[in-house]
Amino acid sequence: MVTGLPGAAGVAKLCADYLVKQLKGELFEELYSDAFPPHILIQKDGTVELLRNELYYCKNGKSKNDLIVFTGNTQAVSPEGQYEVANETITQAKRLGVVKLFATAAYVVEKPVETPTVHGAASDVTLIEELKQFGVVPMDTGSITGTNGLLFGVAALQNIPSICLLSETPAYAMPTGRFVVDAKATKALLEVLTRILGIEIDMKPLDEQAKLSEEVIRRMEEIEQRTIDEVRKAAASRAPKGQMYT
Amino acid sequence: MVTGLPGAAGVAKLCADYLVKQLKGELFEELYSDAFPPHILIQKDGTVELLRNELYYCKNGKSKNDLIVFTGNTQAVSPEGQYEVANETITQAKRLGVVKLFATAAYVVEKPVETPTVHGAASDVTLIEELKQFGVVPMDTGSITGTNGLLFGVAALQNIPSICLLSETPAYAMPTGRFVVDAKATKALLEVLTRILGIEIDMKPLDEQAKLSEEVIRRMEEIEQRTIDEVRKAAASRAPKGQMYT
Amino acid sequence: MVTGLPGAAGVAKLCADYLVKQLKGELFEELYSDAFPPHILIQKDGTVELLRNELYYCKNGKSKNDLIVFTGNTQAVSPEGQYEVANETITQAKRLGVVKLFATAAYVVEKPVETPTVHGAASDVTLIEELKQFGVVPMDTGSITGTNGLLFGVAALQNIPSICLLSETPAYAMPTGRFVVDAKATKALLEVLTRILGIEIDMKPLDEQAKLSEEVIRRMEEIEQRTIDEVRKAAASRAPKGQMYT
Amino acid sequence: MVTGLPGAAGVAKLCADYLVKQLKGELFEELYSDAFPPHILIQKDGTVELLRNELYYCKNGKSKNDLIVFTGNTQAVSPEGQYEVANETITQAKRLGVVKLFATAAYVVEKPVETPTVHGAASDVTLIEELKQFGVVPMDTGSITGTNGLLFGVAALQNIPSICLLSETPAYAMPTGRFVVDAKATKALLEVLTRILGIEIDMKPLDEQAKLSEEVIRRMEEIEQRTIDEVRKAAASRAPKGQMYT
Repeated sequence: MVTGLPGAAGVAKLCADYLVKQLKGELFEELYSDAFPPHILIQKDGTVELLRNELYYCKNGKSKNDLIVFTGNTQAVSPEGQYEVANETITQAKRLGVVKLFATAAYVVEKPVETPTVHGAASDVTLIEELKQFGVVPMDTGSITGTNGLLFGVAALQNIPSICLLSETPAYAMPTGRFVVDAKATKALLEVLTRILGIEIDMKPLDEQAKLSEEVIRRMEEIEQRTIDEVRKAAASRAPKGQMYT
Repeated sequence: MVTGLPGAAGVAKLCADYLVKQLKGELFEELYSDAFPPHILIQKDGTVELLRNELYYCKNGKSKNDLIVFTGNTQAVSPEGQYEVANETITQAKRLGVVKLFATAAYVVEKPVETPTVHGAASDVTLIEELKQFGVVPMDTGSITGTNGLLFGVAALQNIPSICLLSETPAYAMPTGRFVVDAKATKALLEVLTRILGIEIDMKPLDEQAKLSEEVIRRMEEIEQRTIDEVRKAAASRAPKGQMYT
Repeated sequence: MVTGLPGAAGVAKLCADYLVKQLKGELFEELYSDAFPPHILIQKDGTVELLRNELYYCKNGKSKNDLIVFTGNTQAVSPEGQYEVANETITQAKRLGVVKLFATAAYVVEKPVETPTVHGAASDVTLIEELKQFGVVPMDTGSITGTNGLLFGVAALQNIPSICLLSETPAYAMPTGRFVVDAKATKALLEVLTRILGIEIDMKPLDEQAKLSEEVIRRMEEIEQRTIDEVRKAAASRAPKGQMYT
Repeated sequence: MVTGLPGAAGVAKLCADYLVKQLKGELFEELYSDAFPPHILIQKDGTVELLRNELYYCKNGKSKNDLIVFTGNTQAVSPEGQYEVANETITQAKRLGVVKLFATAAYVVEKPVETPTVHGAASDVTLIEELKQFGVVPMDTGSITGTNGLLFGVAALQNIPSICLLSETPAYAMPTGRFVVDAKATKALLEVLTRILGIEIDMKPLDEQAKLSEEVIRRMEEIEQRTIDEVRKAAASRAPKGQMYT
C-alpha cells in the first residue's frame, strides 16, 4: 500500500494521484468522515463532490504483489479525527492483506534545492539498511505531522513493515494561502519509490509538470528575496543610529 | 425540500424564512443540538428561545409536490457538528419522501452588483442543463462552506437529486460584526427558485426590503472607499520617498 | 432551584454562594466532567480540589418550597460540554421535583452605575408580568452566553417555569485577567430574588463587600479614563495635522 | 506510583525518566490515544515512535512497596483528552494496588533561583504535615494545569492518598519554542522525593546535567535582561518627552 494525502507542497497527494493515473488504478472504496472540513467542492462540470478519502486497486503484472493506493482530497481537522482515519485505514489494510506500507510526505527545507534529496524512516532497522541502497538518506530526528505521518506510525505499531519517504521541498505558499504543488519533489520521490517497488511508470508528464513548478518556485524565491531586501533597506533608513533591535 | 441556514449576508436564511411566511408554512419539527453555539436568545416579549433548526411544511396547491423548508437561527460550531446536522436532516428528508433538494447560499463577490447573478451546482449534469434554462450560471470550481453546502453534498451522496443556488452579494459586515442582510440577493435567488418550483409568491414585501438593503450596502461601499482613500493618503504622506512597502 | 456559575464579574456565582452560606445549604451532590478546564485548585490548607459543579439543599422554613442551589467553581470549556452540563442539571432538577428555576447572570454595561438595574427574561409572558411587579426590567433583545443562560433556556424547553435575573455590572478585568467580583451588582440581584422567593437573609456581610467592590471598580474606572486620556494626547501630538485616522 | 509527563521546563518528565533509569524500571504497559497530538517521532536509528504514555515497574529491594512510574513523550491536546488519560491511569493504579501517588510538576517563578524550593500539596492535611518534615513548603493557593495536576486530583478524588511536589524553575523557552529542561529543579525535587520514599539513587549524572542547565538558564536570563534594557532605551529615545505610556 502507498499512502499520500494533501500536505506540504502537495507532494504526497501528487505521488498517490500520479501512481493511480499511470497504473490505471480502480477506485474501490470511499471514506467519508464527520472529521473532515465542513465544505463541499464544485467540479468542472458543475456537479458536487464531498470531501473524502479513497482506496484504489492497481493490478501489478510484473510484481508478485498488487498495489493499493490510499489518497483523497482532504485530511481530518482535529487530532482525534486524524488518528481515527489512520487507525481505520490501517485496520482496512490488514483486512486486505497488505504486506508493506509506503507513506509519502514532504521534507520542508528553507531554500529551493537543485536536486531534492529523499529522506526516509522505517518501522525497523533492517528496512533502513535497505533504503540506503536506493539512495535514501535515513532521518535520525524530528517528527512527521498529520495523517501522512500517523498512517506510517500506526502501520508500524500494527506490525505492518512500513517505510516513510520524504522529498525535499521549500513548500512555498501562494498569496492565496495554497501551497505551490512541487512536482519536482514528487518526481524525486516517485523515482525512488518505483525502484523499490520494482515497477516502471511513464515519468514524462510528471517531468513537464516538474519543470513548470521549478519555474514557479524560482520566481517566488526571487519575490521573497526582493521583499526581504526592501524591508531591510527600509528598516535601515528608519533605525536610529547605534541602536540594535530584536 | 428547500434549505437555508444563517450564512454570508443572510441570503440563505432569508430565502427560507420568506418562503415559509409567504406559503404559510407550519413548523412540524424542532432540532436542538449540543453542537450549536452555547447561548440563548431573548425575544421581543422577554421570553427565551434556544438556538435550534426547524422543519416547516408548506402545502402546495398548484404543484404535485408539497414543500418542506429547513431553516433555523444558527449553524453548528464544529465541523463534526455541521456534518451531524446535515446527515440527520438528509436522513429525515429520505424518511419524509423528499424527491428533490434545493440548497440556498451566498456567492460572495468583492463589489456590490447592479443585478445579482444566480450561480448553481447540482448532483448531476442533467440538472445543470435544466438550471441553464432558468438563467442560472453553472459553477465550475470553488467550494461551498458550512451546513448550507453540506446539506447539498450529503443529499447528492444519498441519491436525492439536489441543486444548490447561490446569489451574488458583497457580504458586508456591520461594525458590530453582523452581516448586512442582503435582501436584493435573496430576491434574485427566490425569483429563480420559484420559477423552477413552479410556484408564485408575493414579492412586494421583499422588494421593499431589497431597496433598503441596496441603500445600506451602497453607503457601506462609500464608507469603505473613503477609508481606503484616506489610509492611502496618510501612508503616502508618511512614507520615505523612493521606498516601496509590502 | 437557583443557579449561578462563574461568569462576568462573578455576579452569578456570588449570588449562589451567598444564598448557600446564609441559608446554611448542605452539599448533596458533586458533578465532575471531562468538559471542565484541565486543571486542579489548591486550597488554603494545601489540599487539592478538582473543578466541579455542586448541588446544595437549603431547608426553607417559611416557604412551602425548599431551595436547591446549583453552583460550582467552573464552567465547561466547549459548547458541547456546556450543553451537556445544562441538560444534565435540568434532568436532575426534574427528578428532584423542581417547580421553578431562577438563573442568575450579569448584564454587562460600559460604565459603572450608581444603582444597578436588574433585568429579566422568562419562559413565558405571565412570568414577565410578575417580574415587573418586583422592579425587574424585561429584556426585549440580545442573548445570554454560557451555562448560566443555557440552564435557563433548557429549563424552559423542558417545561420548568424559569426566570433569568441579570444585574448590571461594568465587568472590569484585573491586570491578571480575572474579573473584579462585583458584590454591588450581586446585592441588587439578591434583593430582588429574595423578595420573589419570599425569604429573608442577612444582607450586612454582602453590603460591606459591595462597598469594597464599588471602591475597586471606581479606581479601575479612573485608571482606565486616565489611560484613554494619555493615549489620546500622545496620538494627537504624533498625528500629522489634517489627517483622519480610522 | 510516581507520575511525570512533559510540562513546564521538563521537570516532571525528567523526574520520572531519571527514576526509571536509576531504578532500572521495566516498561510493562503502553498507552496510545486519539487525544495525543497528531504526529509521530523519528528516533536516532531512523525508526518511528508514536506518541504514547508508559507505565514502568521498579522493583524496590529496601522498601516494602515497589514503585510504578507513569510517564511518556506527550500530553493529550484537548481538556477531554487530558481528563481521559488521568482517569484511565488512576483506574489502572487502583487495579495495580497503588497505595500512594506522587505527582511531580514545575512551580514557575519569574527569575532563576539559587536553590529551588520544593512546594507541595496533598489529598489531606495529615500528608501536608508529613511533607513539612521533609522541607516541603505547602501551597495555599493557585492551580496546577495539565495532566500532571489532574493525575494528582483524580487520585485524591478516588481515595488514593496523593501528594504533588513542585520544584521552582523559571521555565525559559528556547527561540524554537521548546523549554530549556531544568535539571537543577528536577534534582531538588528528586532529593525530596527519594527521602520521602526512603530510597537511594545515584545523583551524580543528574548533578552534571543540573550544572549545564544552570549555565544555559543564566545565559538566557542575561539575553533577556539585555533585550529588555535595549527596548527600554530605544523606547525612551523615541518617546515624546513628558508622556507616560501604558
